[in-house]
Amino acid sequence: MEVRSVKVRVPGTSANCGPGFDCLGVACTIYNELELTLLEEERLDIEITGDGAENIPVDERNIVWRSIQKLLERAGKAQEYKGAIIRMDNGVPLSRGLGSSATAIVGGLKAANECLGNPFTNRDLLQMATEIEGHPDNVAPAIFGGFTISIVRNGKPECFSLMPKLPLKLVVTVPDFFLPTKAARAVLPAEVPMKDAVFNIGRAAMLTAALCKGNKSFLRSVFDDALHQPYRAKLIPGMYDVFKAARAAGALGASMSGAGPCLIAFTVENADAVGMAMRDAFAKNNVKSQYHVFDIDGTGATVI
Amino acid sequence: MEVRSVKVRVPGTSANCGPGFDCLGVACTIYNELELTLLEEERLDIEITGDGAENIPVDERNIVWRSIQKLLERAGKAQEYKGAIIRMDNGVPLSRGLGSSATAIVGGLKAANECLGNPFTNRDLLQMATEIEGHPDNVAPAIFGGFTISIVRNGKPECFSLMPKLPLKLVVTVPDFFLPTKAARAVLPAEVPMKDAVFNIGRAAMLTAALCKGNKSFLRSVFDDALHQPYRAKLIPGMYDVFKAARAAGALGASMSGAGPCLIAFTVENADAVGMAMRDAFAKNNVKSQYHVFDIDGTGATVI
Repeated sequence: MEVRSVKVRVPGTSANCGPGFDCLGVACTIYNELELTLLEEERLDIEITGDGAENIPVDERNIVWRSIQKLLERAGKAQEYKGAIIRMDNGVPLSRGLGSSATAIVGGLKAANECLGNPFTNRDLLQMATEIEGHPDNVAPAIFGGFTISIVRNGKPECFSLMPKLPLKLVVTVPDFFLPTKAARAVLPAEVPMKDAVFNIGRAAMLTAALCKGNKSFLRSVFDDALHQPYRAKLIPGMYDVFKAARAAGALGASMSGAGPCLIAFTVENADAVGMAMRDAFAKNNVKSQYHVFDIDGTGATVI
Repeated sequence: MEVRSVKVRVPGTSANCGPGFDCLGVACTIYNELELTLLEEERLDIEITGDGAENIPVDERNIVWRSIQKLLERAGKAQEYKGAIIRMDNGVPLSRGLGSSATAIVGGLKAANECLGNPFTNRDLLQMATEIEGHPDNVAPAIFGGFTISIVRNGKPECFSLMPKLPLKLVVTVPDFFLPTKAARAVLPAEVPMKDAVFNIGRAAMLTAALCKGNKSFLRSVFDDALHQPYRAKLIPGMYDVFKAARAAGALGASMSGAGPCLIAFTVENADAVGMAMRDAFAKNNVKSQYHVFDIDGTGATVI
């Protein structure tokens, strides 16, 4: 049996874009790289460099390895390949709302699939990644790239990926505190007012249409959310001030990135001015932060 | 003062398309025609032909006249024009879920605006029509045509209109009973499960993207609704059977039209087979019905 080594590149992602709670995501031009060699012997050799490397387990618990195992099992190859050499170089910051765990999962699946000669389609990978992550919000843009719309239908995730017809920049502002996703989920109600649901449905549809058609003027109206941000605002000091500052500096709109604490602004101009305005607004609320400007990654997980 | 006479044509509409409760609408190729002559004297001469003509008041209560009055007041011309000659020919059936009242309102506004030399934009007309109707769902497609996404932002309605990039047919099936909108609204809860809101958000966004891009395969997944149809199903005997029959006959999906009792299926092929299947499924539930096949009207209210 020939043993192959492959290298893949996977983008970081932002979920819950604007009104798209649990549906809309976007792939960012920040990447993790992953090199994988499958081994017939039972040996695990994991080496990680880059962001947060010291906090990632390098044994059986490693999420990349667990994802690889899942794919091997699905392909009926788990007995054939019992170990791996994994080299990761992480550009995506850990646990800040840029989907680092989704990037790792997708990296493992994509690389293992390539090693086996691609028995699975990207839709199959989406299914597996969603089973591991629990929801498709981040894994979908990590796999397909672009701006993604995800739904789950009869237990199966589906994803529509599109590239906006205008040069949208993503300004991601990272405050210097952690917000466990569990805490961010705990504040959400099980039921919401019908009018708030309608608020988000119309805006999510209009946002999608405006991105498809490249219509900037409509994009100024459609990044607000009524379903999760109002409940989570108290967990992020100054959140609405930061949104307001981003818009005042020229952004089309802003929202939480995933379950926070990162905030993301969407703009076609003055990206740095938007970032600085967001940072300053956080500072006025006694929160230190730094911002990053990304483009939308249009390719998703790629073998390099 | 020169007294002008103008004639306008306004499409019937279907609201609450698929997952777009209170947001998504579509203009159908079925029309009301309206001829208006503004009069300086206080005289109202209304003549109506066509569908349901005998049930429409022809005095001060007439909704077309009330809409004309609203526009005259907004333009500061209410003292100048105190009467009107109105000739209506109605193709849109009354009170069946094809937005007949929205069509009437928009007809009055469009004609009066043209008579005055168009002091108002279509967006202004949308604002006025929404004030009269209470919501933009039907008046938006009646004004702009196409497939429309409506939101209300800071009290102002906004509308994005698009023409799907595939030849979508609308199969509207009209059962032979009335369902007052008030009754249909009374069964709706004020709060809904968060997961049902997410269900509709993702599908509304994906539906919009698939229409923009002309992607038929995704359209098979996105016409379902969790927000209002489950509560209203008991008011329309056999509703889900009719949806199922429509899909089995080749439709991409189906939903209530507005607050019912009309049901609408969306298809790119076999429109008549879909209509017959819907009619038969209604019949098995002891409901008589007839179906109509429409295209999407791409122009909205027009001076002819």
